[in-house]
Amino acid sequence: MKPVGPIPDGYSSSNGELVIGGRRVSELVKDAGQTPLFVYSRAHLDRRVGELRAALPPRIGLNYAVKANPHPAIIAHMEPLVDGFDIASGGELAMTGAAGIDPARVSFAGPGKRDDELEAAIAAGVTLNCESEGEAQRALAIGGRIGKAPRIAIRVNPDFELKGSGMKMGGGAKPFGVDAERVPVLARSILGAGAEWRGLHIFTGSQALSADAIIEAQGNVIALAAQLSDEIGERLPKLNMGGGFGIPYFPNDKRLDLGAVGQALHRYVDALPPAFAETELCVELGRYLVGEAGVYLCRIIDRKVSHGVTYLVTDGGLHHQLAASGNFGTVVRRNYPAAIATQFGAEPTEVVNIVGCLCTPLDRLSDQALMPRADVGDIVAVFCAGAYGASASPAAFLGHGPAKEMII
Amino acid sequence: MKPVGPIPDGYSSSNGELVIGGRRVSELVKDAGQTPLFVYSRAHLDRRVGELRAALPPRIGLNYAVKANPHPAIIAHMEPLVDGFDIASGGELAMTGAAGIDPARVSFAGPGKRDDELEAAIAAGVTLNCESEGEAQRALAIGGRIGKAPRIAIRVNPDFELKGSGMKMGGGAKPFGVDAERVPVLARSILGAGAEWRGLHIFTGSQALSADAIIEAQGNVIALAAQLSDEIGERLPKLNMGGGFGIPYFPNDKRLDLGAVGQALHRYVDALPPAFAETELCVELGRYLVGEAGVYLCRIIDRKVSHGVTYLVTDGGLHHQLAASGNFGTVVRRNYPAAIATQFGAEPTEVVNIVGCLCTPLDRLSDQALMPRADVGDIVAVFCAGAYGASASPAAFLGHGPAKEMII
Repeated sequence: MKPVGPIPDGYSSSNGELVIGGRRVSELVKDAGQTPLFVYSRAHLDRRVGELRAALPPRIGLNYAVKANPHPAIIAHMEPLVDGFDIASGGELAMTGAAGIDPARVSFAGPGKRDDELEAAIAAGVTLNCESEGEAQRALAIGGRIGKAPRIAIRVNPDFELKGSGMKMGGGAKPFGVDAERVPVLARSILGAGAEWRGLHIFTGSQALSADAIIEAQGNVIALAAQLSDEIGERLPKLNMGGGFGIPYFPNDKRLDLGAVGQALHRYVDALPPAFAETELCVELGRYLVGEAGVYLCRIIDRKVSHGVTYLVTDGGLHHQLAASGNFGTVVRRNYPAAIATQFGAEPTEVVNIVGCLCTPLDRLSDQALMPRADVGDIVAVFCAGAYGASASPAAFLGHGPAKEMII
Repeated sequence: MKPVGPIPDGYSSSNGELVIGGRRVSELVKDAGQTPLFVYSRAHLDRRVGELRAALPPRIGLNYAVKANPHPAIIAHMEPLVDGFDIASGGELAMTGAAGIDPARVSFAGPGKRDDELEAAIAAGVTLNCESEGEAQRALAIGGRIGKAPRIAIRVNPDFELKGSGMKMGGGAKPFGVDAERVPVLARSILGAGAEWRGLHIFTGSQALSADAIIEAQGNVIALAAQLSDEIGERLPKLNMGGGFGIPYFPNDKRLDLGAVGQALHRYVDALPPAFAETELCVELGRYLVGEAGVYLCRIIDRKVSHGVTYLVTDGGLHHQLAASGNFGTVVRRNYPAAIATQFGAEPTEVVNIVGCLCTPLDRLSDQALMPRADVGDIVAVFCAGAYGASASPAAFLGHGPAKEMII
């Protein structure tokens, strides 16, 4: 038997069924007209934003990293809730545009921005988080050609990292940003070229569950930003401090102590040097805002036994929820939080493998998990499906087509 | 420095450029109107099929596993070249239908077939490779309801595996097929229910480079099929022996000795028991047919240095070629075959990281690879991109959109 990850807060049971945003899964599936289905809860999104606003100093703005979940209804729901939007491509620029988001609230990071993407962003008035000297040159040239001063921040590759993060974005050689020691020269050349100076973006890592590690990284970010601002000789209009706030996916993952992070940020803000008096500060969060607000639902279409092992075969799978399956193979595969949504809260009585419908042994949603007895027709829920689920999975693989997505 | 995998046969150089199917990459990109671009070579497909036909006994038919590359032009090109098509979903059923492929040549495997998929397949006259007793019951019930006898084969979960295969599909408990010892009872019930009996499908693994392992598995498959046929008491109209023929992706991968496999199959065919006199035999190949016929092309849009490490940032990435990047993280990441396509054959002079445009450190196409000097505008080629590339990658991730695909 292998444990499953912790089910997030905000999910309850009614008549033995999982309830999402006040509605039973069988109703949700009926409304959607199908499984597989991603359900995103507005109440959950609101609660997470509320918790963050309560914990963080008012000085610290909240940006949403669209890449975590670019569903139009999610972007639209976040529009009044957050201060800014971070995008990673021309495609995401079009999505924020379609949602009517003021381009002045949008910043664009990404190591491989094409000229057409730069032009669209400059024309719209979006801030570019420039990733290299070459990219800055191209942006300035495009701005000159179309007669519009680009709004430019520099993405810094810091010499420190976010310790314990799932994905390190700083410390040593990286394809992201400009090495810190080259930032002042680049910033002065951007300023000298007449661009609108927008400050710095310093991203140190993602998916960290240790408050201490986040607090240390944020302290380092502020210190580095202050030092660079001095060296540049110009105040920073804005400092994007990055994100990195993780969510618990796996057994023994401990929830991030948001209160501790907030308290540290209060201390940091109170101690900011005078040069930061008018600097906008923000954190950029994706997964932390939307990850636990999403549930992936699929239906059991076969129950079979092979050599004594019970398989629940669903109509979902890794083409929709690649990360939950283990990303096409990991050495130690761990179970995301999962449940039989139509037997929610019932006594677990058997150990089963919950698999997807794809013709590959990698298509496993839950491995040797203790579950209540489930049969054909029951619905399986995989939690923590709100970030990097539908948009980060190979939807075309094996021709089953994409899942439906709904927000309630 | 880390080596890259072996560049497949059939690719040459002209004026310092990679030539695919007789055309230079710069011309191909111009015709396509963009990078990123997958190019599939008809000549390469023809050659692989020709080699297989020459090596295998005429008795052994050749099936194409559509899942490897479902691009419409690939399916259409394979139509006159192979004997049968294996599909894995209702979506792939629609694709073979759109290509005008006779449903009598099509068989449908997959552990999670929905009722609507079973109905479409039965109505069309496609053979179902049934994966469980429950699925067989559903198929028979649907056949009764629509007044058409389903064509049913049984997918067997064998007690042996294909040794050394990248993905084991047999041996022990599996979600695929019916445990061998339960097959005779199920087969007799299918026969008794008036279905059209289509025989057995025994798949033991995939991506094996050892001829000895394949030869051993095929011997086991034939022996098991003969035993099951005896126990069922009815001759097998067809035996799908599965595939498993691998292609070299990584440094030190050795090409499969197809001649040895063919010779063994000749011996096996000559020694078939009399009960197999009218049994259709086939192997089912996907990756082996199309994998090396495809090349993924992307353009360098930034060249940058971070702490002494050179990064070539391209407009492509893991959203198109997930496997080449290491599938969102592997313990030991190895390099697929890759080259600077616009400096093809030039002297390698520097060690570089070739990365994609996505904002994640996992988006790496080639790690510490020795390459000729390349600059912005040069085109990068990643080989072995014909199978499980475009269709098996998260095309929507970060909003850059899908790559273009062309066949020449």
